[in-house]
Amino acid sequence: MLRTNLLHSLHAAGTPIINAWAALPTGYSAELLGHSGYDAITVDAQHGMMGFDAALAMLQAISTTAAVPLVRSSGLVPPEIMRWLDAGSYGIICPMISTPRDAAALVSACRYPPTGDRSYGPARGLLYGGSDYFSHANSEIIVLAMIETEEGLANVEAIASTPGLDGIYIGPSDLSLALGQSPVTGPSTAIVNGAIEHIRAVTARAGGIAGIFCADGNVAAQRIAEGFGLVTPGNDATLLRTAATTAARIARGK
Amino acid sequence: MLRTNLLHSLHAAGTPIINAWAALPTGYSAELLGHSGYDAITVDAQHGMMGFDAALAMLQAISTTAAVPLVRSSGLVPPEIMRWLDAGSYGIICPMISTPRDAAALVSACRYPPTGDRSYGPARGLLYGGSDYFSHANSEIIVLAMIETEEGLANVEAIASTPGLDGIYIGPSDLSLALGQSPVTGPSTAIVNGAIEHIRAVTARAGGIAGIFCADGNVAAQRIAEGFGLVTPGNDATLLRTAATTAARIARGK
Amino acid sequence: MLRTNLLHSLHAAGTPIINAWAALPTGYSAELLGHSGYDAITVDAQHGMMGFDAALAMLQAISTTAAVPLVRSSGLVPPEIMRWLDAGSYGIICPMISTPRDAAALVSACRYPPTGDRSYGPARGLLYGGSDYFSHANSEIIVLAMIETEEGLANVEAIASTPGLDGIYIGPSDLSLALGQSPVTGPSTAIVNGAIEHIRAVTARAGGIAGIFCADGNVAAQRIAEGFGLVTPGNDATLLRTAATTAARIARGK
Amino acid sequence: MLRTNLLHSLHAAGTPIINAWAALPTGYSAELLGHSGYDAITVDAQHGMMGFDAALAMLQAISTTAAVPLVRSSGLVPPEIMRWLDAGSYGIICPMISTPRDAAALVSACRYPPTGDRSYGPARGLLYGGSDYFSHANSEIIVLAMIETEEGLANVEAIASTPGLDGIYIGPSDLSLALGQSPVTGPSTAIVNGAIEHIRAVTARAGGIAGIFCADGNVAAQRIAEGFGLVTPGNDATLLRTAATTAARIARGK
Amino acid sequence: MLRTNLLHSLHAAGTPIINAWAALPTGYSAELLGHSGYDAITVDAQHGMMGFDAALAMLQAISTTAAVPLVRSSGLVPPEIMRWLDAGSYGIICPMISTPRDAAALVSACRYPPTGDRSYGPARGLLYGGSDYFSHANSEIIVLAMIETEEGLANVEAIASTPGLDGIYIGPSDLSLALGQSPVTGPSTAIVNGAIEHIRAVTARAGGIAGIFCADGNVAAQRIAEGFGLVTPGNDATLLRTAATTAARIARGK
Amino acid sequence: MLRTNLLHSLHAAGTPIINAWAALPTGYSAELLGHSGYDAITVDAQHGMMGFDAALAMLQAISTTAAVPLVRSSGLVPPEIMRWLDAGSYGIICPMISTPRDAAALVSACRYPPTGDRSYGPARGLLYGGSDYFSHANSEIIVLAMIETEEGLANVEAIASTPGLDGIYIGPSDLSLALGQSPVTGPSTAIVNGAIEHIRAVTARAGGIAGIFCADGNVAAQRIAEGFGLVTPGNDATLLRTAATTAARIARGK
Repeated sequence: MLRTNLLHSLHAAGTPIINAWAALPTGYSAELLGHSGYDAITVDAQHGMMGFDAALAMLQAISTTAAVPLVRSSGLVPPEIMRWLDAGSYGIICPMISTPRDAAALVSACRYPPTGDRSYGPARGLLYGGSDYFSHANSEIIVLAMIETEEGLANVEAIASTPGLDGIYIGPSDLSLALGQSPVTGPSTAIVNGAIEHIRAVTARAGGIAGIFCADGNVAAQRIAEGFGLVTPGNDATLLRTAATTAARIARGK
Repeated sequence: MLRTNLLHSLHAAGTPIINAWAALPTGYSAELLGHSGYDAITVDAQHGMMGFDAALAMLQAISTTAAVPLVRSSGLVPPEIMRWLDAGSYGIICPMISTPRDAAALVSACRYPPTGDRSYGPARGLLYGGSDYFSHANSEIIVLAMIETEEGLANVEAIASTPGLDGIYIGPSDLSLALGQSPVTGPSTAIVNGAIEHIRAVTARAGGIAGIFCADGNVAAQRIAEGFGLVTPGNDATLLRTAATTAARIARGK
Repeated sequence: MLRTNLLHSLHAAGTPIINAWAALPTGYSAELLGHSGYDAITVDAQHGMMGFDAALAMLQAISTTAAVPLVRSSGLVPPEIMRWLDAGSYGIICPMISTPRDAAALVSACRYPPTGDRSYGPARGLLYGGSDYFSHANSEIIVLAMIETEEGLANVEAIASTPGLDGIYIGPSDLSLALGQSPVTGPSTAIVNGAIEHIRAVTARAGGIAGIFCADGNVAAQRIAEGFGLVTPGNDATLLRTAATTAARIARGK
Repeated sequence: MLRTNLLHSLHAAGTPIINAWAALPTGYSAELLGHSGYDAITVDAQHGMMGFDAALAMLQAISTTAAVPLVRSSGLVPPEIMRWLDAGSYGIICPMISTPRDAAALVSACRYPPTGDRSYGPARGLLYGGSDYFSHANSEIIVLAMIETEEGLANVEAIASTPGLDGIYIGPSDLSLALGQSPVTGPSTAIVNGAIEHIRAVTARAGGIAGIFCADGNVAAQRIAEGFGLVTPGNDATLLRTAATTAARIARGK
Repeated sequence: MLRTNLLHSLHAAGTPIINAWAALPTGYSAELLGHSGYDAITVDAQHGMMGFDAALAMLQAISTTAAVPLVRSSGLVPPEIMRWLDAGSYGIICPMISTPRDAAALVSACRYPPTGDRSYGPARGLLYGGSDYFSHANSEIIVLAMIETEEGLANVEAIASTPGLDGIYIGPSDLSLALGQSPVTGPSTAIVNGAIEHIRAVTARAGGIAGIFCADGNVAAQRIAEGFGLVTPGNDATLLRTAATTAARIARGK
Repeated sequence: MLRTNLLHSLHAAGTPIINAWAALPTGYSAELLGHSGYDAITVDAQHGMMGFDAALAMLQAISTTAAVPLVRSSGLVPPEIMRWLDAGSYGIICPMISTPRDAAALVSACRYPPTGDRSYGPARGLLYGGSDYFSHANSEIIVLAMIETEEGLANVEAIASTPGLDGIYIGPSDLSLALGQSPVTGPSTAIVNGAIEHIRAVTARAGGIAGIFCADGNVAAQRIAEGFGLVTPGNDATLLRTAATTAARIARGK
């Protein structure tokens, strides 16, 4: 009896998924996030500050809670993606997917044959998922492609309909940059907002999870109102810095 | 030219010291705190989740900023205290000081002969402090005793006047427990508040730094108004958990 | 609602507790033990090869399973013992308890006031135990004293009846050495066996958990038959070495 | 006088090589394997749970013993492969080699010019191998290609005869998957057994080392009987889990 | 106000840049180098012995000093290169650049759009660089290509004039190997010396920084006399080994 | 057949022991020292920058070489000392031994009963020492007391004749401080020199190893000439810093 991936049922029920973002390289902070009301926690192996050794401890810490562990890989690097899955991640968010071919390669890296070409050796995945991990991993593990280039934007329909892909995750900063704007994480210029809404709508039509990184809880709530199915209200490093800065300011009476 | 300890001049000027508290075992979070407006950052080797290996990286991270690195030791354990100083801490906060003799032993562990019996071998302290570290370390390094037992409370005048001790730091939770109350970190029952004010007043009269751990920035601001010279508006783990919980709640529209 | 300590109910029900022993300094092996059918897993901070940084990852890994996390401290060192509890250990096994005074100091280090003098700051303990950790920690956390000296043996009745102590854990090797024998972990000479049985009987009479380290599963089964309530069938390093040696031998056709 | 690679002489003498497989991320378990009767120990950087920082400690630990340190890379990633060699690995097992071109690229990454294009900077390799490492590394370091795809199977003759390649290592699980079977590590269906025997025979004819991962010592002994020159009787994580499970079961009297 | 990259102004002023090379995987040694009179310190992620987790601590340690932190990547691997920049490296030295296309891809990985395709998420880069990191990172971050293949040598003019590339760094060992010579780091055969001088002259003509790894301080001084703008007088591992060997020899009276 | 401790035979033969001192927290630097011509390497757990997790990797790295691994403990802390021995240290150097009672407690912590009270559980010691470790550890493991206080100096005869103690190690800096002088590591004022010579002579007369920390190789050679049996020509951090500073200076043409 494999552990089912809660994110599938939340998505099926139309319940928005609240996803935390972990950039601090320690299991203790990841565990704290797991006690803070999130459905999923993404270990950010692209812009986060952890190598494999720290990330493993984070995945274990997340596994002490009900939150689903995800990893954002550093790129479309199949050997690395397979390692995150073996380490017990129950999903992959992959940056810089620009073509249907990229998307297919991403899915393939996350699925055992005959669907894909993931190599067998589930290691910690087996401990997290359960003894019949192999039988169900292909259907339980979530695969999300990030669209954040002009080419990706142009290909969004084809990407969103890639067999086996569970949805699209938007990084507003890189998307803004790709569209010639400044890298903001909140609501942005009309051109960026239009692109975001376009990706969301196409993804929703294809039945996928439409996810997006948000500046904070308020932006996240708004994104949910817009129809997004997975939102990330900030990352732990920013939350900590903001909270610490506020606490210091208040202490100083400012 | 040794790096002078900013905390001495702040105290001399009557400027309250805003101190962050680091329990997360990673240099990245410690460095974030150093960019969040604090005068000092205390690595908590008593209740924090780091061993020496992680703490060293935290002390290095703090040293990239203007904040003064302090360590709270696990107890009155001189060989451990000396290691924190060698690792570049510019001050020690020592828990559970109950007698003048405890206080004298604490000071002795932090001072080179003839004042104390700190062993020579400054290691990273030399890198942080400068090439003439030995000549000035005894006067630059801050030593704070925690009073958090009934016996300590009874001895507060003698402890506060221990030669070489720079002040008293109050842990309201343990003090509350010692006085038969629940372990709260904010304003508390009359008996605890009375004890806190008593310690503060005695310390101030002795010319020392009166410091205290606070639940948050508001409590810290109030403690400053009461005359405290060093306040800690929460620790990083709690700040992160609170901020993360709030962000998730807002995202959920609650 | 605090997580209850499964070991109390097993003991109350007269069900023997099967306890794993972790000497390998990694969370992955600790997590594997948690999937191998044990009721408890003890991180061995005395003879095991981990510092605090590795032990924390082990405690997190154990928390992903149903096994109860325990730590054997390096000795009767209260500041260290308190750190293990703050890191989420749900029990302490303390070596070299020789007098009732030692036993009382051990219990005191594991209990918040007014029962003991544990310092408040539960950190990961709060995450593992639950939000009302403080209210129930004193009764949930298991405290076991090791008797392994002649003096301890002479004082066994007084030690076993120390208020707040949950039982006695026997290290047959050190006990053998104390009695002038070789350090074996299986059944031993008559003098050692007599001492072991004496300790067990006294502990049982006092209502405590009588625990013992065993060479392997067979010895453990025999100890249960003798009336022991907690047995440790070998440690992970030895299990791995033995299994690896056997596999190599078989592969070589020997 | 470079340290010679024991595996070459064992192969030349027709003596089967018994190879341990290390997935636990710690030098202590790797060192235990080195004391358990193996000729070689492979640090598994594909499905094992270690990053570079932990793997370095494992390679050092293996170097305290007579066992030859090998690394399985995460894939055919030359910069990564070169790092394992610089860290002191005396051989590479590379997964997913499907074409002669793949095989040639693998060999090239492991050989200094003019034979290959390995970058110079042997670091720990120099300490392990000796001061004339550069002169002899090309001939001492073992390079094994894994055949585990249909394409690889079709190309086995060309791959096995790649100049500089020392042999083929079979991962029965991935090979089974590639052939439309379930991922088992013991003897399997006729189609898989046929493929395994075919690869072995071709490799042997080409003079290479034919290696294979095995479920346990018994399977390994059988593989040796079939003519395999290098066998891996299980990995450390599985050995530990099995041994720990057995010990717990026996203790429970089951 | 972004932290300006000291190396640009040194280069503009014609002042030779003295660069340390860090292969030891610890922040303490990196910090020692930062106190030893260097303008820059390069964390060697190609031949050095650190993974990301150790490298992060090294970059923090370097940031406690005035030395500019650089990283040599393991190869031309854009996702990895972007991670080093996010971790706070203020420059990249990339091995094995053989074509103008390689050089352009390297520059692109180091520059935000529209100049390049670096992904946004500066993390520690923001802490090191300052709050307006994004606005100035493209111009502050140094990008150096290593030419160490025959093809690279043939393409040196085109590579050196790649828009956005700040210069060329020569690895004499790999260049020697590429030219059919032995891998030496000091002055070498006429053919290697000729190639080195050619690369230097072409780079200088293009206005770039011409850098080179040197066996020791004397070779470095000579390289400066030859016109090099950035020299590396040995790496920390070699410096330590040489110094330690000398100290032992002298102690033995040899 | 236990590994014999080379230091005993060197001492018996009157051959001076050249001892390296490791303060850098990484196995790679420790391994480099082991290839640099030393008879022993001391991991400095008092003033060095490593916790247990890093020290374990260092001890493993030293074990790849012929050098004997020693540890200087943080103080006279028996549970800590026993951990270093279990981790495979073949000797202890203990700071701040001032009385015969201190010396006896130190010896006791290093010897199994009936000689001492070391707890049984040799862990890595067994791997390093061999399968009959227990039978011979008491005689193979070296125990050196540091005399560096006035009281210690006054008690030197009694300390040096403590049964089981193998010798005295002098820390000239702390001894200088204790005698009211500045903390120098080279030849010093007449009063310090007199004390050093006195300790050496007393130790030699008692048949013990007289050891001393030295500023560099020249001082070490001189100390050997004076009759010292074990010398430490500087530590790795200082060697690296000095060598790096010199290389940078030479590169700058100074």
